[in-house]
Amino acid sequence: MKYTAQNKAELLLEQKKVSAVYQDICRQGLRLDLSRGKPSAEQLDLSTEMLAYPRDKADCYLDGADGRNYGLTYGLPAMQRFFSDLTGIAPGQIVVGGNSSLSLMYDIIAHAVQFGFARSSRPWGKEERIRFLCPAPGYDRHFAITELFGFELVSIPMTPTGPDMDLVEAAVKDDPTVKGIWCVPMYSNPTGVTYAPDTVRRLAEMPTAAPDFLVMWDNAYALHNFEEPGDELRPIFEDAKAAGHEDRVFYFTSTSKITFAGSGVAMVAASEANLKLLRPALNIRTIGYDKLNQIRHLHFLKDKEHTLLHMRRHAAVIKRKFEILLSVLDSELAGLGVAEWTRPHGGYFVSMEVPQGCAAEVHRLCCEAGVVLTPAGATFPYGKDPKDSNLRLAPSYPSDEEVESAARVLCCAVRLAALTKLLAQGE
Amino acid sequence: MKYTAQNKAELLLEQKKVSAVYQDICRQGLRLDLSRGKPSAEQLDLSTEMLAYPRDKADCYLDGADGRNYGLTYGLPAMQRFFSDLTGIAPGQIVVGGNSSLSLMYDIIAHAVQFGFARSSRPWGKEERIRFLCPAPGYDRHFAITELFGFELVSIPMTPTGPDMDLVEAAVKDDPTVKGIWCVPMYSNPTGVTYAPDTVRRLAEMPTAAPDFLVMWDNAYALHNFEEPGDELRPIFEDAKAAGHEDRVFYFTSTSKITFAGSGVAMVAASEANLKLLRPALNIRTIGYDKLNQIRHLHFLKDKEHTLLHMRRHAAVIKRKFEILLSVLDSELAGLGVAEWTRPHGGYFVSMEVPQGCAAEVHRLCCEAGVVLTPAGATFPYGKDPKDSNLRLAPSYPSDEEVESAARVLCCAVRLAALTKLLAQGE
Repeated sequence: MKYTAQNKAELLLEQKKVSAVYQDICRQGLRLDLSRGKPSAEQLDLSTEMLAYPRDKADCYLDGADGRNYGLTYGLPAMQRFFSDLTGIAPGQIVVGGNSSLSLMYDIIAHAVQFGFARSSRPWGKEERIRFLCPAPGYDRHFAITELFGFELVSIPMTPTGPDMDLVEAAVKDDPTVKGIWCVPMYSNPTGVTYAPDTVRRLAEMPTAAPDFLVMWDNAYALHNFEEPGDELRPIFEDAKAAGHEDRVFYFTSTSKITFAGSGVAMVAASEANLKLLRPALNIRTIGYDKLNQIRHLHFLKDKEHTLLHMRRHAAVIKRKFEILLSVLDSELAGLGVAEWTRPHGGYFVSMEVPQGCAAEVHRLCCEAGVVLTPAGATFPYGKDPKDSNLRLAPSYPSDEEVESAARVLCCAVRLAALTKLLAQGE
Repeated sequence: MKYTAQNKAELLLEQKKVSAVYQDICRQGLRLDLSRGKPSAEQLDLSTEMLAYPRDKADCYLDGADGRNYGLTYGLPAMQRFFSDLTGIAPGQIVVGGNSSLSLMYDIIAHAVQFGFARSSRPWGKEERIRFLCPAPGYDRHFAITELFGFELVSIPMTPTGPDMDLVEAAVKDDPTVKGIWCVPMYSNPTGVTYAPDTVRRLAEMPTAAPDFLVMWDNAYALHNFEEPGDELRPIFEDAKAAGHEDRVFYFTSTSKITFAGSGVAMVAASEANLKLLRPALNIRTIGYDKLNQIRHLHFLKDKEHTLLHMRRHAAVIKRKFEILLSVLDSELAGLGVAEWTRPHGGYFVSMEVPQGCAAEVHRLCCEAGVVLTPAGATFPYGKDPKDSNLRLAPSYPSDEEVESAARVLCCAVRLAALTKLLAQGE
């Protein structure tokens, strides 16, 4: 029965019951963690075979190059082709990086600040003011990069089809200080939303007052379906090219959540005009990224087909964790009218909405009971959720039993926080 | 007999002879390369065993951490200890990076420009003008980083004890726009000089008008002796600490020329005050560098003692290449009075001085004969050698036979260019 339909006496009785359960949990000395989108050891084990590559000296040679030595700053041609196969982007538009797509994003923003890109009239660092659109709830590490560089973060509400495009279009139309937008277009962090075709098309086509407006397209979960067929993402580069806006898009992805989270291979794709500006700096910054790790990946993942087979093994593990989490939420919270949560088809996150003003309290209650959650507000620019209602849940890392225990603690905390709020309102 | 002691008729006769040899060489269709300090395949083979690590899942765990997953942004504690063992710097002062120390240097300069360091009154990017000292001949890739960021490069002559310290001290004393100096303190690129103790001490102690003056200490060849005992380098951090100038030093090294040039592990060490400023940006830029490659290195290199044993195997290969090069130079050029060259005790380079105005011509003659040299001038700021007399020779990469052939072509080109110059002067 909905809490909101209960009278004060009923609520007090329920609070007493839930409090007792919570006290009981606190005495268990739990140490659980639902805070970060990390693959579990069980998932990492799926790639153990990759450790064996390159097996010998001969394996280190590819495309006529010695992968052990300096050189090939934009990546092994075979690795560019591999990522081209995965993304549908031409190999020549792809720069293969190190182990972190986040670093590539940082470097692209740093490059824009220091030097500017294709259509910049000057380096962004010379502008009085830079604003950047942050679909929220969204990815805290994205927001942190643009905050570090002193940009003003502009929150754009997420909808079930992606960022609210009416608001995006309005924000970019006349204001040349709005220089870009962060996007996780598939199985978005944390809502799990995949951008609708129309959202992608509008992002590619919309007129922007800033000629060098950037779409930071972090397609981290491109292959991370729970079931086949997964969501489909409209290819943004094609729309951008058709609209004459190819210079707008920087496309990132990596194998961090395909092979090893700390030892994957990342890539960035961009227009030829932007690559022309990027390559000289890249050639000065490094004599090449780690090509043996590229070879390791090529031997293990081979091509898109094999990679998709490999991703089914990930899906089996991670889908199970999501099902456990969702089934606890369903059984403990459904019908109470105090929380809503997403049911993504892929990715690493569930996004939960609790009553306004309760997210920080739920977080606190969970922490005290030994369950680490992503801090309330983290999914919003500056770490501030204006409604204090969103929580990001990441069930991938803990064991099945831990996910279940953590979910039960969370539900108890949500009930308790909601009851406290309802009772306070009634006074 | 010295060319300078010969009369015109003798010189013409010699020119005819050398020209004939050169024409003969050109007809051989050689394709040789003395241009870059790359290890040879024979050297890379010395680390083949490292490819086998980590052998299994169990090998991926170290210090209680799963090396396959995200985290430990400053490196595995064991890898920090390894580099501490190698450098004598406290583990807590060390940040372990990716595969490229050059990238770390770029990132440090970029950080200074964007944010500044411990004693900066504002980000370097807000300064009207930044000047940076470039000991020359020196490392082209260093100079390129500071040139890219728009610094004014100030050439400081190299001496047999390091950069001319009288000039360095004079340059930094009263001019607050002079913000730093590039140093390759051991087996310097390209002169092979190891900085004398007094040079190190003066760099650490000298008063600088810029409070945030930086010594970019690229100790790339710390273990790269040809024979035991090798040169000794005075530890700069200790002098800097004693002088209250610890914030001045950023110390870089890597295993690029210990294991695999493209897949080594790099590090940067800095003062606690600078690390305090660096760490937040580092935490935003990445969720950690490749720890499996750190584990791979730890299994293979183990500790300083094993690493030094491994370096003896490198020395055997590379010393042979240097001996071949130097013996050809000795036999073909000694006594002609047209060239001088260094005899380093380690590192990757021989630096050669040809008559003023002849380096570019020697480079051209070599290229036309199929021998690639580092472009004349590359070892100077802006790629411009004011005397056009320095050439950098890198004999490590080619085979023994190729080093010998290339050296013979080089000697022929030096003779020809010198003769042409002498005859032109005589007119």
